[in-house]
Amino acid sequence: MIRQTSKELYAAYRESMRKIADIRYASAVLQWDQETYLPPKGAPIRGQQISTLSETAHQLFTAEELGVLLQELKTRGDLTDKEKKNIALSWEDYERQKKIPSAFVRELSETVNKSFHSWILARKKNSFAQFSPELARLVALKKQEAEYLGYSEHPYNALLDEFDKGSTVNKLDKVFGDIRTPLKELLDKIMAKPQVDDSFLHQHFPKDKQWAFGLDILRQLGYDMEAGRQDISEHPFTINFNSNDVRITTRIDEDDFSAMTWSCIHEAGHALYEQGLPDDEYGLPCGEAASLTIHESQSRLWENHVGRSEAFCVFQFPLLQQYFPEQFRGLSATDVYKGINKVQPSLIRTEADELTYHFHVMIRFDIEKALIEGSLQTADIPAFWNEHYARYLNVSVPDDKRGCLQDIHWSHGSFGYFPTYSLGSFCAAQLFDAAQQSVPALENELDNGRYQPLLQWLRNNLHQHGRRYNSNELMVRITGREPGIDNFYNRLLDKYKNIYNI
Amino acid sequence: MIRQTSKELYAAYRESMRKIADIRYASAVLQWDQETYLPPKGAPIRGQQISTLSETAHQLFTAEELGVLLQELKTRGDLTDKEKKNIALSWEDYERQKKIPSAFVRELSETVNKSFHSWILARKKNSFAQFSPELARLVALKKQEAEYLGYSEHPYNALLDEFDKGSTVNKLDKVFGDIRTPLKELLDKIMAKPQVDDSFLHQHFPKDKQWAFGLDILRQLGYDMEAGRQDISEHPFTINFNSNDVRITTRIDEDDFSAMTWSCIHEAGHALYEQGLPDDEYGLPCGEAASLTIHESQSRLWENHVGRSEAFCVFQFPLLQQYFPEQFRGLSATDVYKGINKVQPSLIRTEADELTYHFHVMIRFDIEKALIEGSLQTADIPAFWNEHYARYLNVSVPDDKRGCLQDIHWSHGSFGYFPTYSLGSFCAAQLFDAAQQSVPALENELDNGRYQPLLQWLRNNLHQHGRRYNSNELMVRITGREPGIDNFYNRLLDKYKNIYNI
Repeated sequence: MIRQTSKELYAAYRESMRKIADIRYASAVLQWDQETYLPPKGAPIRGQQISTLSETAHQLFTAEELGVLLQELKTRGDLTDKEKKNIALSWEDYERQKKIPSAFVRELSETVNKSFHSWILARKKNSFAQFSPELARLVALKKQEAEYLGYSEHPYNALLDEFDKGSTVNKLDKVFGDIRTPLKELLDKIMAKPQVDDSFLHQHFPKDKQWAFGLDILRQLGYDMEAGRQDISEHPFTINFNSNDVRITTRIDEDDFSAMTWSCIHEAGHALYEQGLPDDEYGLPCGEAASLTIHESQSRLWENHVGRSEAFCVFQFPLLQQYFPEQFRGLSATDVYKGINKVQPSLIRTEADELTYHFHVMIRFDIEKALIEGSLQTADIPAFWNEHYARYLNVSVPDDKRGCLQDIHWSHGSFGYFPTYSLGSFCAAQLFDAAQQSVPALENELDNGRYQPLLQWLRNNLHQHGRRYNSNELMVRITGREPGIDNFYNRLLDKYKNIYNI
Repeated sequence: MIRQTSKELYAAYRESMRKIADIRYASAVLQWDQETYLPPKGAPIRGQQISTLSETAHQLFTAEELGVLLQELKTRGDLTDKEKKNIALSWEDYERQKKIPSAFVRELSETVNKSFHSWILARKKNSFAQFSPELARLVALKKQEAEYLGYSEHPYNALLDEFDKGSTVNKLDKVFGDIRTPLKELLDKIMAKPQVDDSFLHQHFPKDKQWAFGLDILRQLGYDMEAGRQDISEHPFTINFNSNDVRITTRIDEDDFSAMTWSCIHEAGHALYEQGLPDDEYGLPCGEAASLTIHESQSRLWENHVGRSEAFCVFQFPLLQQYFPEQFRGLSATDVYKGINKVQPSLIRTEADELTYHFHVMIRFDIEKALIEGSLQTADIPAFWNEHYARYLNVSVPDDKRGCLQDIHWSHGSFGYFPTYSLGSFCAAQLFDAAQQSVPALENELDNGRYQPLLQWLRNNLHQHGRRYNSNELMVRITGREPGIDNFYNRLLDKYKNIYNI
């Protein structure tokens, strides 16, 4: 055998990874279609087609030859740093995936498909009991997956690691423990004050006007419509097939203006990240997002630090009045700012304000932890849920649809995802603070509806690196500190001091 | 090794075929998306993703193990007739596909992708010269493919066989030779008569009204909207991902009512066939269409024998008036019938009447034959094209866009497809005649806008068999005769005698 150069070997590695990515992203196209345009009778076979693609991608990725290639490349010193990083990360992924049999990947994918349809049905019937047995099967598989993957201390750690490498129950217990009491105290102070009026958000906002307004905002933020598109789905999401095809979805409630608008901005945050990933690293780790936490930091940054800012309300107010003259008559930009930032303990996570949002996440974290360690059975979720909503948020859950059936994640087998929403929010605050410090003109730019400088800063400092640095490394690199809660908490204090005169 | 039962082996065969079908249909989903919703910058990687799926499906299908399995199954006597047929056809496909290297499949798919984009660009610039080099590369690959596959007499036969097994240059030369002169004579007689007025078709027909009318017609014909959907694309097509997800597309020209309407009916014909294929034969030959000729017989049957009939115009006239009161004011159903059947030599195949249509096909057939045998170079297509349009249709081609750049097929590498349009039309007439004879109430049913009896007859006699019988076998089985041109020609005589008083 002739010894191949590192360049040749790396090219072979790239080629294999490209092929696997093609199949994974094909699966993503089928999923996108499933959530947007799939005719109802097409659903069963679609699930099967997606499972076959997952299984095939897994088989290709865990093939012995790729392992041999990676091992050889690990020994080569004459690669660039970025190439070395790709090899190191692919090797990590390879070792991880090798632990899981392809047949298990198929079984998991098929079970997810059944569970997803069972969840839809259960929601229609407003009965968690309908969903519980299917969810129990999925939890059993996720526990099995944790066993395959291995873990120290807690099986849930194996799953948390999938969404954010290095995330553990211990760390999350600590960060949620640190933030729980201060948040609760702040919430109590706010609730003791006179309430903000947000009734204007619940007038009639025609569908097509909302749609057009949403697109307008997306364009302003810099979402490239030539490299993506927006469609309607039951649950808003972002999905990417490469950095030049990053799609988002939204839903429109004609009686709730905020449902679409800030969800658009949230998904735009995800999409701007994906559109900013280096397209010459397609299929390679450095072409992928750093972690789900970092992904959520991007969506939450745009949603909260841009979209829910006073600057945004003031600048966009004339546009709002143009699209909805009736609905915004007699209101000021400040009224809008206060209305969209009203703090109100409530039942639905996706409609929650920036403060109470994290109680929703903590409750889900507690449930997932208990499910995976086996101290809670799926049938007991509603009781646990309702008790915790009463305890943390002082709300009484009237039915499963507005309770433990509200989120799609568990039906997808995504256990370990929810914590990234909170961690992402905390990182968002820390990143936004760093951006303000490093771009002195930023405030002025945002006041004038110029979002490019912020986007450019994110592209340069974060997006372009892909997975080259993990969450912690990225945060240290960009902000000089490990991820923490200080910026987040101080920002909430400032924000609500202003809005609620605390 | 323990000897496995035929049942076990057949199950293993089914499972392999299902998996391959999942990947092939995934590729079809990506193609559908490419033609409907793909953002422009997503195109390059999309082409690559499709190529990977084609290559992967080819690799799986030509794997040694499947060959061994098929060979063993061929020896088993204890299978049902249908199972034996599936095995025999899969073996044929296997032997055929084995001749082509997977790397060639990839190269062809990538070249098709480039060629398709080059064609789009050339159309924009209205310059065939822009497209010619890319097309030349594709023609070279198709010639190579013919060599891989092998053929007797003419390399084009290897390609014709892909669309309709057993179709050859000789047979086509004969059938086109038989029909050419009678058609030309009929055309001359018609052109000597006073012309029919179809100006009402070229008023303004608003997009949304046309869209709604099209869906109305689709539903009436029996197209199952729960197992399919219609979208807009540049070029109307039907595509299926299984018999419960069969999608069609259309295009709307606000100044030409017929552009959308009869294209809807044409695609519905294709879709009704696909929706009628047995869904328990997913991925197996008996779950696939018999041939492209039979496919086109279905689209042409619904388009021409139903959609362009007087009965259709009479029954749908009140609906037309309801959707378009202004446009159909002062007209009768007979005016509509005559208008939509106006015979007029023209430049665009898809807008051609039932008579001149076949000259468009014959010209393309002559060009393909010459390209594949090497007697014509792609650069010389425009001259050849324009000369033949002058000769057969007496029209002068003003530019490439209205000439040899009009059809998408060559850019897709589909050489051998066009003849099936004519053969399909001839078969449609023969099938419709058989339906009339076997369902005496059919005329009355169609007069009253009841399309189910015809559909049911097609389902029972044709759709349900999938590929179990080839074109010839099916035609003999259903009509008692080999496919011929008599029914087609006699029908045209009758039709135009009535419309043109010949």
